[in-house]
Amino acid sequence: MNHHDTIVALATPSGAGAIAIIRISGKDAINVASGVFQSIHQKDITKQKSHTLHLGHIVDEAKILDQVLLSIFKGTNSYTGENTIEISCHGSTYIQQQIIQLLLRKGCRMAQPGEFTLRSFLNGKMDLSQAEAVADLISSDNEASHQIAMQQMRGGFSNEIAKLREELLNFASLIELELDFAEEDVEFADRTQFHDLLNRIEFVLKRLIDSFAVGNVIKNGIPVAIVGEPNVGKSTLLNALLNEERAIVSDIAGTTRDTIEDELVIGGIGFRFIDTAGIRETKDVVESIGIKKTFEKIEQSQVVVYLMDSSQLTVDNENLKKVHIELEKIKNQFPLKPLIIIGNKADKLDVNQKEIIKSEIASILLLSAKENLGVDDLKNQLLSFVNTGALRNNETIVTNTRHYDSLIKALEEIQKVQWGLQSNLSSDLMAIDIRQALYYFGEITGQVTNDELLGNIFANFCIGK
Amino acid sequence: MNHHDTIVALATPSGAGAIAIIRISGKDAINVASGVFQSIHQKDITKQKSHTLHLGHIVDEAKILDQVLLSIFKGTNSYTGENTIEISCHGSTYIQQQIIQLLLRKGCRMAQPGEFTLRSFLNGKMDLSQAEAVADLISSDNEASHQIAMQQMRGGFSNEIAKLREELLNFASLIELELDFAEEDVEFADRTQFHDLLNRIEFVLKRLIDSFAVGNVIKNGIPVAIVGEPNVGKSTLLNALLNEERAIVSDIAGTTRDTIEDELVIGGIGFRFIDTAGIRETKDVVESIGIKKTFEKIEQSQVVVYLMDSSQLTVDNENLKKVHIELEKIKNQFPLKPLIIIGNKADKLDVNQKEIIKSEIASILLLSAKENLGVDDLKNQLLSFVNTGALRNNETIVTNTRHYDSLIKALEEIQKVQWGLQSNLSSDLMAIDIRQALYYFGEITGQVTNDELLGNIFANFCIGK
Repeated sequence: MNHHDTIVALATPSGAGAIAIIRISGKDAINVASGVFQSIHQKDITKQKSHTLHLGHIVDEAKILDQVLLSIFKGTNSYTGENTIEISCHGSTYIQQQIIQLLLRKGCRMAQPGEFTLRSFLNGKMDLSQAEAVADLISSDNEASHQIAMQQMRGGFSNEIAKLREELLNFASLIELELDFAEEDVEFADRTQFHDLLNRIEFVLKRLIDSFAVGNVIKNGIPVAIVGEPNVGKSTLLNALLNEERAIVSDIAGTTRDTIEDELVIGGIGFRFIDTAGIRETKDVVESIGIKKTFEKIEQSQVVVYLMDSSQLTVDNENLKKVHIELEKIKNQFPLKPLIIIGNKADKLDVNQKEIIKSEIASILLLSAKENLGVDDLKNQLLSFVNTGALRNNETIVTNTRHYDSLIKALEEIQKVQWGLQSNLSSDLMAIDIRQALYYFGEITGQVTNDELLGNIFANFCIGK
Repeated sequence: MNHHDTIVALATPSGAGAIAIIRISGKDAINVASGVFQSIHQKDITKQKSHTLHLGHIVDEAKILDQVLLSIFKGTNSYTGENTIEISCHGSTYIQQQIIQLLLRKGCRMAQPGEFTLRSFLNGKMDLSQAEAVADLISSDNEASHQIAMQQMRGGFSNEIAKLREELLNFASLIELELDFAEEDVEFADRTQFHDLLNRIEFVLKRLIDSFAVGNVIKNGIPVAIVGEPNVGKSTLLNALLNEERAIVSDIAGTTRDTIEDELVIGGIGFRFIDTAGIRETKDVVESIGIKKTFEKIEQSQVVVYLMDSSQLTVDNENLKKVHIELEKIKNQFPLKPLIIIGNKADKLDVNQKEIIKSEIASILLLSAKENLGVDDLKNQLLSFVNTGALRNNETIVTNTRHYDSLIKALEEIQKVQWGLQSNLSSDLMAIDIRQALYYFGEITGQVTNDELLGNIFANFCIGK
């Protein structure tokens, strides 16, 4: 990929709207724009200041394509760190296409996904983890993931890594200096201080690695499988949680044959609720497939919500037996998975009946999805599975698998160095491990990089960013 | 609706993208923005010039919502003609919502559809027909409708109406002056000149009214019904015309039971192709409903394309008979509707067979949708039904039903005045008709208006425009 030509892309979501933004970046951006833009005040836009806006028309030969506002960003003051023009045009897809095609004819190239941000990274406007945070920020749809991405984009994570890296680099230099004086057997690097530093780095790395468990679920949403017999009110519960009519609510048993996923944000954390077909014994082939799917979905979930119709338990002891069998099945197959047991339709029960059910099934949560009673208790229970301590304390939380991998590798190297220090390993061998640890730190912030890595990272961006 | 408060709306298409624009307009726009924006250069944005851009953060108390670019437009230099701020933020839906909610808490009101353009009209930045053209421009998806909307937005139509109105107003004043001197029997208005003016106005009005036939189809797309037996290749033809796989192409006769609509732009003009179930005799109830629907769709279409499998005609004369019967049915029921007769699958025919078919069915167009042979001939035939003369000559074309209605009414009044002039009607009676004509002219440009009319017009806009 050429990083010195001039690129163009639509930066706003595709489709028609009031306004669309077309972004041009590269050394010819202002000249190309100047060739297709006629200011209504006859201004020469190549002579205008950075960060100014100009009203005029985009013209293709004699034909006026649109009346637009043109923003000028010069050199290092732009997002990309190079000359940038943003054209704010009327948001018809026809106009968007016509203007982009015109700019392509005038020498621009269509931008690859994330190429504006890639240039920002290459031009030193942000490091790699900050660039990655831009994509996370755009895809974040709840408070927690937004907060983490925002902190990472503003350099919180980078600073933490950079500080450790600098201190380690300092010691690496001293130890490598010792190699030059190997025959004199001197120690420039204070071994006690170095020991302390390694412990400190190990501590931070472990904390960051641990944070990934929380970070990952916050970024991707916590999958929750809802399991229960047909007609116990799964769809109604889902709707009560979602506060809107997403799933088809029906009185016919077995309506929900396919799995439905719905996202809900509770306390700023995203949960993905997966409605399943339940696990009751059946001869219906379609239902059997549904049960297999249910177990697969439980496997992929972090939390299981087992739902039953509590009003059916009082009139029929067979049902109670079935419930116990099904709960045992789940507990046996997924012994470590958090399980929330819910008795729905509790509005149909009197106080006595409730007490009997509670004594029969330990830790059952009685609620009424239809009447929206007790649904908040369920929300609180779900939230209790997320350790939001780090989030509350504004600590750095790792959400990116690539960062996680590099941190793990860096920790391994640091532990090798610790072992080397304890066992009086020679400086030259220790220096290799330190350099390797530094390499993994550099991978995170992008001081160490290659085209393939960059290609993989930016391929996941949207076009125009 | 209060037109003096400060309004806010998302101006870019909904959904996630690289960038989203949130637009604020009203006298407090800059102050409200100032309260939630922190410039990275510590600038006070209330003291910045119009048409400048500023990098900074949107903050909600201590919480940073996003890093954004803020555009300032002051007073009459903005789109709305009042203070306007545009916030260019990261395009996540979460950020969009959070910023808009923050601005609502800070005293903004959610904008109604088209309210920014309504304010532009109320503040005299554009007349009503120009404002209406903004919505047309955004919804235009082909060259012709774009060109007409663009011309109207730039004031082409308004100028034509305004000029006629001014001349007529001039005569109205002179004639009304005669009323003051009624007893002296003077004529201030030269009757010959007046006669010429009325003829000129009548001529222009008729041309504008006539242009609506073209304008309306250009704006809405020309509906074309594709009629033919199942399995003659309707879906394949549609795909050949669309150059992509939209309809389900299947070898099972009768696959297309429902009508499918697809838009295609030919020579800058939009065509809406309506795939129908054909009109063959059948006992299948579903098919019968399909045939009824087919006739309804023909009724609503401007052009009918009758499609047959030409390779079936050579082997079976029964088919030829059926085709003649069906063509007669269509011609009898819709004698004035343009009909294009197509023999598909012509790739299976030799030269002799083609000649025989051409002699049997007058004006048949033989083509192969599958091999994409002769499809361009069909496109040219379709285009020939649109009178693009006015478009080529850059004449004003009326596309708006409201304008069309006002023009019709204005013409009626002008013709009354003409009749009055011929029959020496008294000045006072003639003055009433002239005033009425002037009223209808004013309706188009918005000199005459009311809240209900404005409400109807702007309700069709998108929010944020």
